[in-house]
Amino acid sequence: MAASQEQDDQTQKALGWAARDSSGILSPFHFTRRHEIVGVVTQVGRKVNKFKVGDKAAVGCFVGSCGICNSCLDDLESYCPKAKITYTFFEGQGVSYGGFSNIFVVNEHFAVRFPDTLPPEGGAPLLCAGITVYSPMKYFGLNEPGMHLGVVGLGGLGHVAVKFAKAFGMKVTVISTSPNKKEEAIERLGADSFLVSRDTEQMQAATGTMDGIIDTVSVAHPLNPLVDLLKCNAKLILLGLPDMKKPAELSIFPLLVGRKLIAGSAAGGLKETQEMIDFAGKHNITADVEVIPMDYVNTAMKRLAKGDICYRFVIDIGNTLRA
Amino acid sequence: MAASQEQDDQTQKALGWAARDSSGILSPFHFTRRHEIVGVVTQVGRKVNKFKVGDKAAVGCFVGSCGICNSCLDDLESYCPKAKITYTFFEGQGVSYGGFSNIFVVNEHFAVRFPDTLPPEGGAPLLCAGITVYSPMKYFGLNEPGMHLGVVGLGGLGHVAVKFAKAFGMKVTVISTSPNKKEEAIERLGADSFLVSRDTEQMQAATGTMDGIIDTVSVAHPLNPLVDLLKCNAKLILLGLPDMKKPAELSIFPLLVGRKLIAGSAAGGLKETQEMIDFAGKHNITADVEVIPMDYVNTAMKRLAKGDICYRFVIDIGNTLRA
Repeated sequence: MAASQEQDDQTQKALGWAARDSSGILSPFHFTRRHEIVGVVTQVGRKVNKFKVGDKAAVGCFVGSCGICNSCLDDLESYCPKAKITYTFFEGQGVSYGGFSNIFVVNEHFAVRFPDTLPPEGGAPLLCAGITVYSPMKYFGLNEPGMHLGVVGLGGLGHVAVKFAKAFGMKVTVISTSPNKKEEAIERLGADSFLVSRDTEQMQAATGTMDGIIDTVSVAHPLNPLVDLLKCNAKLILLGLPDMKKPAELSIFPLLVGRKLIAGSAAGGLKETQEMIDFAGKHNITADVEVIPMDYVNTAMKRLAKGDICYRFVIDIGNTLRA
Repeated sequence: MAASQEQDDQTQKALGWAARDSSGILSPFHFTRRHEIVGVVTQVGRKVNKFKVGDKAAVGCFVGSCGICNSCLDDLESYCPKAKITYTFFEGQGVSYGGFSNIFVVNEHFAVRFPDTLPPEGGAPLLCAGITVYSPMKYFGLNEPGMHLGVVGLGGLGHVAVKFAKAFGMKVTVISTSPNKKEEAIERLGADSFLVSRDTEQMQAATGTMDGIIDTVSVAHPLNPLVDLLKCNAKLILLGLPDMKKPAELSIFPLLVGRKLIAGSAAGGLKETQEMIDFAGKHNITADVEVIPMDYVNTAMKRLAKGDICYRFVIDIGNTLRA
């Protein structure tokens, strides 16, 4: 990984994997660019002072932003209307090509120092899933010891939310449509209790018991039963993006009589991403991952589509692309 | 008005006006009870130390609560599940009979000191409308000088929200379905601008400009266009109770990408009601009222049903019930 002060330096020769046609099948790909995701700093630009060669560094969801809007000035680059997402094409600004390659050049502002204590494979997914749950927990004050947090959905975001909440000292209830996730939630992830969202009796028994809910589900689902689980003044935070054309149905009365709130949240900014990964390093929080070689990626994509993953695939690019 | 330490003292002979049958027509009514709304303290109980005889006192929306739940302990009696509303029957606890009478006995905790500088007729409606807009403005941080606040609906709550927001030093935009309220909003109430909510061009031009919106409308109306008016991190606060059976439609995407929130709020607690009325006294904030004699009340009810009121009727009980 090379740290730079220039956002548009795409001059290095790189080898990566890419989908070359509409089949979506990934194959080895040579291109001119600059990039990785968790790795070791191999070069630093003249003006770089955050990293030196040999440091562990990581890149999250964003590799650029305008730097002058209110969001950027508030360390919330993730809400900048011009934020450059790591994985996608930048309209009018060249292509990022993602991190499936041997080198990655990034402006030092968009790289974070990666704790030595964290394994790269378990730590890398925190740069997206971790910050996406950590940021709203901090912003909405859902990180106090003793608070009761509901976590809806036990996927890539949800299982990390449980781990952060337990590290904050909270009581955690996982809420899921799948009763067979109960053992996983309680025995392995350390949640305190489990609710099957389709079991109205269980849900009613938990009415008014939660200080907050982190909802990670990205398919359309009823919000009103979740609002009912909240105490007075409590907060339902939505992190998943359901079908954008179908609006959710929301009853107003419970919001008014309980001063409850519903909010959305995207990933956090770079300053908070650093804080999150440092916290994860201190508390040994990692995402549960299945490490795969790059040439397994197309099989992994098929398994991902079927939901056959617990919880994140991490691709070992280093070994796959070794010269 | 008599201040008491006993919540269930209903022993005084009172004269008031009441609806005696299902016609809803109010007529003079003798009953055994305890009550008023803004008035002068005529008796104090043995343990009362907040008031002395001759003090101006006022009673808001609540005259009782459990005193031991989290809401009560947090000075949020308005959210106590056992809160006794001033105007209605208390199930299993006797009848309040409201304030249309010559005397009113109230536990001193539920009476506030009424500023000498405020006229009773303009100040009395603040005990409900005032605290209902003031409380969420404080709680959600929508009271900072220079912030841009939208106020939806220019009725009893809305016109008071404009006055408080201007006293906080905010920029205020009134949002209404009625273009003919523009002059009233800007010329008389001091709002800075006006949006006709049905004018999509006007609404689009104001996209992403507001730090918060206080929505006072109590008929069903679209929320998504209001969310679009909010900046990043901004807040839409609902105070009106639309049809409880018909849920509102809410798009999730704008909440996520802008970390926006939607919340409800009811009236505030007694401590905050005192703070609100003191603030109103200091800044000469009153509700705009039409003072009517008690025997006009049935005509007033008909005008109220037609929306023929600007903004609150205040009944001069004192002169009507003078012995």
